[in-house]
Amino acid sequence: MENKRKPYQLVSLDWKQERTVFKVKRVEIGGDNFNVIAGPCAVENEEQIHTIASYLSKRGVHFLRGGAYKPRTSPYSFQGLKEEGLKYLKEAADKNHMAVITEVMDTNLVEKVYEYTDVFQVGTRNMQNFQLLKTLSKTDKPIMLKRGWSSTIEEWLLAAEYLLLGGNPNVILCERGIRTFENSTRNTLDLNAVALVKTLSHLPVFVDPSQATGLRTLVHPMSLAAMSAGADGIMIEVHNQPQEALSDGDQSVYFDQFDKILEDVNSLSSLVGKRPDFRKQVNIEN
Amino acid sequence: MENKRKPYQLVSLDWKQERTVFKVKRVEIGGDNFNVIAGPCAVENEEQIHTIASYLSKRGVHFLRGGAYKPRTSPYSFQGLKEEGLKYLKEAADKNHMAVITEVMDTNLVEKVYEYTDVFQVGTRNMQNFQLLKTLSKTDKPIMLKRGWSSTIEEWLLAAEYLLLGGNPNVILCERGIRTFENSTRNTLDLNAVALVKTLSHLPVFVDPSQATGLRTLVHPMSLAAMSAGADGIMIEVHNQPQEALSDGDQSVYFDQFDKILEDVNSLSSLVGKRPDFRKQVNIEN
Amino acid sequence: MENKRKPYQLVSLDWKQERTVFKVKRVEIGGDNFNVIAGPCAVENEEQIHTIASYLSKRGVHFLRGGAYKPRTSPYSFQGLKEEGLKYLKEAADKNHMAVITEVMDTNLVEKVYEYTDVFQVGTRNMQNFQLLKTLSKTDKPIMLKRGWSSTIEEWLLAAEYLLLGGNPNVILCERGIRTFENSTRNTLDLNAVALVKTLSHLPVFVDPSQATGLRTLVHPMSLAAMSAGADGIMIEVHNQPQEALSDGDQSVYFDQFDKILEDVNSLSSLVGKRPDFRKQVNIEN
Amino acid sequence: MENKRKPYQLVSLDWKQERTVFKVKRVEIGGDNFNVIAGPCAVENEEQIHTIASYLSKRGVHFLRGGAYKPRTSPYSFQGLKEEGLKYLKEAADKNHMAVITEVMDTNLVEKVYEYTDVFQVGTRNMQNFQLLKTLSKTDKPIMLKRGWSSTIEEWLLAAEYLLLGGNPNVILCERGIRTFENSTRNTLDLNAVALVKTLSHLPVFVDPSQATGLRTLVHPMSLAAMSAGADGIMIEVHNQPQEALSDGDQSVYFDQFDKILEDVNSLSSLVGKRPDFRKQVNIEN
Repeated sequence: MENKRKPYQLVSLDWKQERTVFKVKRVEIGGDNFNVIAGPCAVENEEQIHTIASYLSKRGVHFLRGGAYKPRTSPYSFQGLKEEGLKYLKEAADKNHMAVITEVMDTNLVEKVYEYTDVFQVGTRNMQNFQLLKTLSKTDKPIMLKRGWSSTIEEWLLAAEYLLLGGNPNVILCERGIRTFENSTRNTLDLNAVALVKTLSHLPVFVDPSQATGLRTLVHPMSLAAMSAGADGIMIEVHNQPQEALSDGDQSVYFDQFDKILEDVNSLSSLVGKRPDFRKQVNIEN
Repeated sequence: MENKRKPYQLVSLDWKQERTVFKVKRVEIGGDNFNVIAGPCAVENEEQIHTIASYLSKRGVHFLRGGAYKPRTSPYSFQGLKEEGLKYLKEAADKNHMAVITEVMDTNLVEKVYEYTDVFQVGTRNMQNFQLLKTLSKTDKPIMLKRGWSSTIEEWLLAAEYLLLGGNPNVILCERGIRTFENSTRNTLDLNAVALVKTLSHLPVFVDPSQATGLRTLVHPMSLAAMSAGADGIMIEVHNQPQEALSDGDQSVYFDQFDKILEDVNSLSSLVGKRPDFRKQVNIEN
Repeated sequence: MENKRKPYQLVSLDWKQERTVFKVKRVEIGGDNFNVIAGPCAVENEEQIHTIASYLSKRGVHFLRGGAYKPRTSPYSFQGLKEEGLKYLKEAADKNHMAVITEVMDTNLVEKVYEYTDVFQVGTRNMQNFQLLKTLSKTDKPIMLKRGWSSTIEEWLLAAEYLLLGGNPNVILCERGIRTFENSTRNTLDLNAVALVKTLSHLPVFVDPSQATGLRTLVHPMSLAAMSAGADGIMIEVHNQPQEALSDGDQSVYFDQFDKILEDVNSLSSLVGKRPDFRKQVNIEN
Repeated sequence: MENKRKPYQLVSLDWKQERTVFKVKRVEIGGDNFNVIAGPCAVENEEQIHTIASYLSKRGVHFLRGGAYKPRTSPYSFQGLKEEGLKYLKEAADKNHMAVITEVMDTNLVEKVYEYTDVFQVGTRNMQNFQLLKTLSKTDKPIMLKRGWSSTIEEWLLAAEYLLLGGNPNVILCERGIRTFENSTRNTLDLNAVALVKTLSHLPVFVDPSQATGLRTLVHPMSLAAMSAGADGIMIEVHNQPQEALSDGDQSVYFDQFDKILEDVNSLSSLVGKRPDFRKQVNIEN
């Protein structure tokens, strides 16, 4: 495979040997850092997102996730709080000195989401929404590009190529599980892809073990497995009351489960040559 | 399965027992009709689309397809002629008394594409582009909703539910192959899905054997197989010079291959209780 | 694809341009014939198999299927009547002037099954049981080789190559559905594979729409679709009391459903240039 | 999922809460141990297997793998040295105080392989070779049951149930990658399955990162990822001259790569609460 002519260029390690590192607020993404993004699947109300952000901030977590515009399979499912959700999310992040990452589902929403977010998330269903990619490539905020659940590694890198070619070099790739015949987990986490992409591209690669498993008991082992496979960060769904969550409750971890994940990520970091981005804060604020 | 509570409603045969039938220009879609859509993968230039449209029209084909905005895996591939392509497509259709069907890739393009098309096509990558679905549901033109290449039948019907719930009842479902481990064909045509959806929904179901196979030699047998499985129509990529096509040349049939498909569709129609929509025209215009 | 060097030889149309045709008892398989194999999933008792065989024989069906040794996912499921089942099956076939086709699951059973069957069936789980293939290749009875549910077309043809290379040229390939992400049908029938294999190999290709769908309402449309795609035969699970069947009842058709399948296969045959093997008998015996 | 009635019993943690631990020669498998199996894909000649065994033994590795009867997709590929290979394998293991694990492909070979091996391996293609499972369940040697490349977790556990129900409790489950649409790696390693099975069953779970990736550069990260996901052991293809290997050379690691894997497995072990089985030996024999 390594000798095959690659159909992408700008995202390739052949093109740029230095690993891509960039800052979001004052926190570096990529390189020797291991970043942790956490928060609920969806922003449900003001209190919920403040409770979660406050908890995460105390643990030193710098990146707050939360969906305001939710892509839902059924039109009858909760579709998100929309702009109200963005507002709550940003307020909770600001108050707790965190950065925001949230999904943008449509070109028409890019401007609005831009006002509230620090990092754009392109969801799995939109990895090949090329108009959206082109529009985002013209903005000056970083983009986390989730892998399509049935997209090959090559297609994923080509989608990132759209972003770099359009002018935005600050891209995070995020593996979130692929669709296979196996149905006892929500998706199949493809850690081969993480290790392989690290040999092909200079872009940071994150993993979302919550979406990738759909089961909260698997989030801890898969977080560590992701780190061992070479991931540069993880994104975890955390909820103060997972059993009451309006979406994806089964895959959201409890606070004490999240604490254990941070603890073990910290322990594992030296072995994999990484510096967890939450470590310094933990010392300062606890 | 039949006894499970279904998560969709408006698209269901339980909700509406009559098959959905509607007219595009003067041609009926659905019901006892078997519709044929044909044309090139992409509109490449004025002459090409006029040549193809003229040929198709002589065969009695009423629906002209052609991509103007092309979703392409690589940013380095031909991206379509955009509005110029829409213009050529409509002119070719008008001149030959045909209706236009073309893909709309983004909410921002809905208005523009509306001016030129008779039927909106939602492509496989956009089946769950919910903003696009919501926007299209507010228009008064029919929509052909292609199945996502890794979407379940249930997800497909729920995507159609977005359209009907938003107010647009004129929806065609189109199976175009799913992604599997098999790689000697471009996709795996899922005719089980066609037969099953006919038992679940009142909406017409079409098949795209060109995308579903990726090989022009398979388009003829798969067209007949689709019809036998219960499809209400087919969409075929036809090109005057397939070997020169700017995209998808390998799956575009030659004119004489297309003639043979029409001939055998015609022969098969009485067995499956269908009336090919091109038949009458053939008698009149040839 | 056509230009790639093929890894198989003896099964290839390049190697042997004449379609493989052979006789089982006095009935020809392959060529212009369209063969129908029918019977229950499993031989359950003497009366059941005689009832079904007698019914099938009256319809002119020449091939009686029925499992005696059943491969079952769970050790707690009915495992078949074993040799007793073989005995009943052969008696029912003999009495009704039919030929027997039944599965052989293990090299140790080849000799025993040989005494009772006319055609060996290699099941989907054994497509790459190479010892079994080698053993069967040394026998003088035809072999129906089902495609592994996750085997590529190339792997399937290479499995057949084992049989031909070992000395047995009388091989039927049988597509029975592949495993994909779609779970509303038991498997995904891959008719692309049927059409493609007809361009690659001289061996007859059959389809098993019962296994491929798992739903009896889909057996009729998929039988016709298979025929339209170029299949040389079909294998159908028929049961006198599907709702009481010890295995696979949901996919077994009732007698009246089977009658309708035969009727429509008959109607379709001239279009696809085939001669149904049951036709003559129907005239004689009814 | 946890609340669904499980179709298996003996393999379940509900049935037996104690983790299964057993000895092969004097080395414990399961429990707090982390076992390493290594060796070439195939035994190619006497010198090769002795060279590799001698190297592994010096590193403290206790389990020598090597194929004598090789299941090969093509009949034209090297099929293994057969009994000669078994002999070389056992001699190399004996000389170096190692235990043998090798694949048994057929019921007819169980007796012969029994003479030479310490652990039977059931390959991915035979996971549902039920006659083979039944035969092996009556022997008194442990069995490593590889997951079928398209078998669900439930089917895998049911296959193990055949072994326990037949009387053999000493079973190792081995995840070796599943078949998906992704084709830049040979298979997709499903570590979700490892973590999930550890919550469902008391049996030890191993991982084969060589088969699961097909690329030697991925074997190191995936070994660590497997361990982090909760695996009880790994099986690695090691070759003295990977570039000359008669089979699977691309996925066989060099000696120095293997050394690095052992080193990092050792470092990771305390974090995951495991005791590498090679550690003590390393101290003694180096």
